[in-house]
Amino acid sequence: MVPDYAKARQGKRAHYDEETIHAILDTGLVGHVGFVSQERPMVMPMAYARVGSTLYLHGASKTRLMGLDGQKMCVTVTQLTGIVAARSSFHHSVNYRCAVVHGTARKVTDDEHEKALNAITDHLLPGRSGELRAMTPQELKATGVIALDINAASAKIRTGPPVEDADDLPSSLWGGVVPVVTALGTGIQDAHTPEGTLPPPSIRKAQAKFIA
Amino acid sequence: MVPDYAKARQGKRAHYDEETIHAILDTGLVGHVGFVSQERPMVMPMAYARVGSTLYLHGASKTRLMGLDGQKMCVTVTQLTGIVAARSSFHHSVNYRCAVVHGTARKVTDDEHEKALNAITDHLLPGRSGELRAMTPQELKATGVIALDINAASAKIRTGPPVEDADDLPSSLWGGVVPVVTALGTGIQDAHTPEGTLPPPSIRKAQAKFIA
Repeated sequence: MVPDYAKARQGKRAHYDEETIHAILDTGLVGHVGFVSQERPMVMPMAYARVGSTLYLHGASKTRLMGLDGQKMCVTVTQLTGIVAARSSFHHSVNYRCAVVHGTARKVTDDEHEKALNAITDHLLPGRSGELRAMTPQELKATGVIALDINAASAKIRTGPPVEDADDLPSSLWGGVVPVVTALGTGIQDAHTPEGTLPPPSIRKAQAKFIA
Repeated sequence: MVPDYAKARQGKRAHYDEETIHAILDTGLVGHVGFVSQERPMVMPMAYARVGSTLYLHGASKTRLMGLDGQKMCVTVTQLTGIVAARSSFHHSVNYRCAVVHGTARKVTDDEHEKALNAITDHLLPGRSGELRAMTPQELKATGVIALDINAASAKIRTGPPVEDADDLPSSLWGGVVPVVTALGTGIQDAHTPEGTLPPPSIRKAQAKFIA
């Protein structure tokens, strides 16, 4: 059952199945994390990872995020895929996929802490954590993790050409979709990378993963 | 004066000048709108436009957004520009620009209503509203506009290569930045566009505007 607060208001574009929601979460680059601070809504962009039905977020131990243990949160992941140009302003739109996830913040400790941090690294660069040395105890201590066990979620998806009023057709105007393309470019190595070192498999995997 | 709630917690990447904040708002494709509904944080992706120190959002008259008149809102616009691959998980990061804007929702009426709707259309496709017929009274009635007069705002920007611990250098590992590229592709005309019709100037302007 989807609780009322998690239901999309424009029902025709809404999806509530886990497969659709997870697919959007798994191919998003950044999440927008919403919480309430002193009765004020706050929205922050954050890296994240999904493991099962849990989203993980991380931040320096001193940040506001780490004080949210037990509080309600919302994380929204959006992929814009096109600008929809119609014959009327009214029918202009965008093509997109988004997942809106609700849950309660839970501060992560023990074994789950390191696993979550690796999952966040590996979300953007699949397998990267295995290419690197293990985290030190000081590094683990300096980085907090908040879990959001998903209580309710919805997705919204729009695809395809513009809708038009019959009165606006036929028309001499151009109508259609302008694709919004997001992709990873060729890696730019830094000054410490030995000459001739190839980008690691994690980067090639990311380049294949994040194409929209 | 920047109120405490609008201050970035990691001060070294923070900016509070209007020029920087407006530049991010003006080149963002989508905003993430945060509000509080039944004591629960909600984050929704929305089209928007900036006019002076006001952001405009629109939606069908029946949506939750339109009931927010007088309530606090937060709108965050984020551009992800790179994935930063370091020699340790701890120093992995992303390059990005984001603007976080706070204000109070104000329901828009009269002349400001139509101007705001045109501004939202023109944000994504500069000049598009001038290429189209005027909106009808029914269309205007069906689409509500919420203004957010900006009370406080901050920007955060990260650029450049990874930071590293001295102990992790020298290293045989690849480190650097994988660019995240966002751009508009060639317009795909729909079935109603007469053969040989070129995409309008608004689309060419958008293709030049949204390259990051």
